[in-house]
Amino acid sequence: MPHALLDKHRQTLDSALTAIRERGYWSPYSESPSPKAYGEAAPADGRAAFEAHLGRSFELDQPGQSGWHDGEISPYGVELGVRYPVCDPQALVDAALRAMPQWQAVGAEGRVGVCLEILERLNRRSFEIAHAVMMTSGQGWMMAFQAGGPHAQDRGLEAVAYAWREMSFIPHEATWEKPQGKHPALVMRKNYEIVGRGVGVVIGCATFPTWNTYPGLFAALATGNPVLLKPHSQVVLPAAITVRVIREVLAEHGLDPNLAALCVPADREAAQALFRHPEVRSIDYTGSNTFGHWLIDHCRQAQVYAELAGVNTIVIESTDAYRAMLRNLAFTLSLYSGQMCTTSQALVLPAAGIDTDEGHKTFEQVGQDLAAAIEVFLSKPEVAHAVLGAIQSDDTLARIEQASAGAMGQVILAAKALDNPDFPRARVRTPVLVACDAADAAHYSQEQFGPISFMVRATDSESAIALAEDIVRRHGALTAAIYSTREPVIEAMTQATWRAQVALSINLTGGVFVNQSAAFSDFHGTGGNPAANASYADSAFVANRFRVVQRRRHV
Amino acid sequence: MPHALLDKHRQTLDSALTAIRERGYWSPYSESPSPKAYGEAAPADGRAAFEAHLGRSFELDQPGQSGWHDGEISPYGVELGVRYPVCDPQALVDAALRAMPQWQAVGAEGRVGVCLEILERLNRRSFEIAHAVMMTSGQGWMMAFQAGGPHAQDRGLEAVAYAWREMSFIPHEATWEKPQGKHPALVMRKNYEIVGRGVGVVIGCATFPTWNTYPGLFAALATGNPVLLKPHSQVVLPAAITVRVIREVLAEHGLDPNLAALCVPADREAAQALFRHPEVRSIDYTGSNTFGHWLIDHCRQAQVYAELAGVNTIVIESTDAYRAMLRNLAFTLSLYSGQMCTTSQALVLPAAGIDTDEGHKTFEQVGQDLAAAIEVFLSKPEVAHAVLGAIQSDDTLARIEQASAGAMGQVILAAKALDNPDFPRARVRTPVLVACDAADAAHYSQEQFGPISFMVRATDSESAIALAEDIVRRHGALTAAIYSTREPVIEAMTQATWRAQVALSINLTGGVFVNQSAAFSDFHGTGGNPAANASYADSAFVANRFRVVQRRRHV
Repeated sequence: MPHALLDKHRQTLDSALTAIRERGYWSPYSESPSPKAYGEAAPADGRAAFEAHLGRSFELDQPGQSGWHDGEISPYGVELGVRYPVCDPQALVDAALRAMPQWQAVGAEGRVGVCLEILERLNRRSFEIAHAVMMTSGQGWMMAFQAGGPHAQDRGLEAVAYAWREMSFIPHEATWEKPQGKHPALVMRKNYEIVGRGVGVVIGCATFPTWNTYPGLFAALATGNPVLLKPHSQVVLPAAITVRVIREVLAEHGLDPNLAALCVPADREAAQALFRHPEVRSIDYTGSNTFGHWLIDHCRQAQVYAELAGVNTIVIESTDAYRAMLRNLAFTLSLYSGQMCTTSQALVLPAAGIDTDEGHKTFEQVGQDLAAAIEVFLSKPEVAHAVLGAIQSDDTLARIEQASAGAMGQVILAAKALDNPDFPRARVRTPVLVACDAADAAHYSQEQFGPISFMVRATDSESAIALAEDIVRRHGALTAAIYSTREPVIEAMTQATWRAQVALSINLTGGVFVNQSAAFSDFHGTGGNPAANASYADSAFVANRFRVVQRRRHV
Repeated sequence: MPHALLDKHRQTLDSALTAIRERGYWSPYSESPSPKAYGEAAPADGRAAFEAHLGRSFELDQPGQSGWHDGEISPYGVELGVRYPVCDPQALVDAALRAMPQWQAVGAEGRVGVCLEILERLNRRSFEIAHAVMMTSGQGWMMAFQAGGPHAQDRGLEAVAYAWREMSFIPHEATWEKPQGKHPALVMRKNYEIVGRGVGVVIGCATFPTWNTYPGLFAALATGNPVLLKPHSQVVLPAAITVRVIREVLAEHGLDPNLAALCVPADREAAQALFRHPEVRSIDYTGSNTFGHWLIDHCRQAQVYAELAGVNTIVIESTDAYRAMLRNLAFTLSLYSGQMCTTSQALVLPAAGIDTDEGHKTFEQVGQDLAAAIEVFLSKPEVAHAVLGAIQSDDTLARIEQASAGAMGQVILAAKALDNPDFPRARVRTPVLVACDAADAAHYSQEQFGPISFMVRATDSESAIALAEDIVRRHGALTAAIYSTREPVIEAMTQATWRAQVALSINLTGGVFVNQSAAFSDFHGTGGNPAANASYADSAFVANRFRVVQRRRHV
């Protein structure tokens, strides 16, 4: 039966394989929440499905349930009141291991077919998931739909495509025939079995509960591993819906649903015991350095794929499109209130200022102009709320206040609290812009998660590039950018990013933003600097999640 | 220029790519040391080249040289007297890093072309290398030629083929064009640069100084990393010749020879500082658990690919070719005096004995018959010396004495010291066979490196398979085998090896032996049990040795 699913989705798979090889634009999932793409009823149905979860127990029929969890807090101030099953991690691990041989037996063809079916089902529920993502993470609606729905599905599909490509290289069997001169050849039949490594744990983050979990989830699942999805304790609903869809598809196709489970441990000790469980062989994690390094240091039985903090950097050396550059930056710094792992934090400029198509601009002038550009961009409330969303965590809120109060350097633009007419209790803040010297590294050189950015004054353009390289090498980054009209400067920055191993965007002045990465084309993270030890997605992200066990006998 | 090398060797590369996908028999390097394959002059030239090294300083013209190293001891008792450059690891690292951008710039095509040329040059020097391997490791001549020469080259080529396959998926550039409805499409040009991770250190072992180093060496090199080859302090010559060939090929093609260096640190502190050096980003290691785990625990800045100790296991349940089975086992246990990481150590039988084509045999009878088969096989001195070689280390010698004296269980066959007429000071020992109960696990369940094997008495065939699985899961193994005439038993063992993740050989009674693995067809190690965290070679062995750094700009 699972093989029929591969046939059903073969064209999607083939297109995805072409896309990861050619890296042009492609997606099978419409990023437009339009009735044309999703059907006339989809918006209302999705909203109704979301609302049906509220104030209820989210039943998943998982083993070892000991109680319910209900700590979700909406950044929009909405009462969610959903209760999620708390299950004994050992019971989930035991059930997952029991399900594993059957998952191995259906082979790469069966597993990939099932994963593609799951992704299609998730896509159909994009509206429901979007509401869940928006209300838990604080994203604006359009981002919640796109990043929480089709873009997350793209990243999941991308991981499946990589997994398929690697697994498809392993033949089921081979005949090995070695000539022996005048004697008869040695002939053996060899069989190659793809086996998963063990239980995969995927730890979700509070800001991108699907986009940052689908790559690891689908990479682990496709390569033969059961998966326990452990969401952030305050951002559970998108994960719960995802797990329910997976379990439904598995059960419908005669497979054990316990291959995927929502894992909400009873307490911190239970969670840590799970992460260190000898049968847990992979952990995918997005979040803070502190906990990420704890996982890497203490969960040595598992391969840990970690996306951690970073300091994304832009060097602004010159531009021939000053206004467009400022607009582009204003959007980047405002989007989801800078609560993206890809948002730029350090904007490094030569102290002498920059040449532009509007004449030379001093360092101070660029700062004022960028502040003004942000204010203009956010001047219409409907735009501001759509773009900013709401602040996900108390920590971020506190950090914004600190920065606005001047604790991190000279304030060029202070954050403002906005009232969202649709969500009166939403906590909305506009970005903070701080100026400082390169030498004052205490604040700009560590991640200040949220809408806090620094205009950093470097001696000259060479030292600006050197500083950017140093920041990335020491503190990590998922994104880097340069604005320059001089090819030698762009070339120098390019070489700096090769050494520091960070993706570079050059002179973005239009509808592409440094904090956005497109599945199938852009690698998210290089895996080569402290911000992440893996990339979404590449061969290294999947190839070590399964092993090949061979057997051989004479024919 | 390097691209011309890719053209020159394209057919070899294409054949290797086909081989790793189809996994039939293939090799471009003749395993027969025949004049037909290597030329009439090759044997004499190779011997002369080897002898020319003796009693001399092995000049490599490397940076930071502070002295000479001369600790080699031949297991054959031959005076070697070669002196090798001792270089400051920091100077080697500095020089390697300086060489890296150029190595990146020639691209995957250039690097792979150079690697293929190096392998061809190494192949031409197979006789010289074979003498070096024989005299340092103690291997017999034929094994030294095959495993030290063409088979090692095969494994190196295999790693290059995997590296090429993964790198060739990364396009140099792509055009990304995203439709925007009625508005003009967003169009970007994207470039993808493959960058190495940093310096690779490859740590050689005393028994297979080329076979076990070439995979890591060529995997690291092909993917853009400079390599420091740190040989075992007593087994240096094969590594030194290898490094010289690599440096020659690099220099001939206008590349910095410091991309590859022989690294003989002045002392243990210098070596440990190297392994922990922040610029060392990969370590390939074959050897003891103690040092391997030290590397894994302390060299967290690097990806460590480790092949460690294991307990290779055979379950003997029944056979329809009793004599042939005994002959096959006798060869396996004798070859290179069991000093292979793939030699079987624990032979597990049901207490009640086994059914054979010569009637039922008790546990004791099988032990006696296997002992007799070993004795018969080694009764001709010329066969014995050719197969056994010499004992590489004092530790192994001591272990053999211990086992022969009954310290590890009931001795069925004691080791004998043989005199090698060609090498009067060679230390030659025949295998030890010990019998014990499954419960007496103290000795058989840890690696007893060398010609020491155990006949282990299990309750029945089910518990024999369960014991084999348990041994592999706890202590690791590179090989496992089963002898049985019953398909359900073979099936049960197959499933046990899937769970324990170890390669299985079934009913080997002819010219294939459990301790041999064929490049391009057999995966050496699964990477999924404690004996090794990686396999030679697969995608996971290469995919994380490079990263992709992209840049994008509007067209």
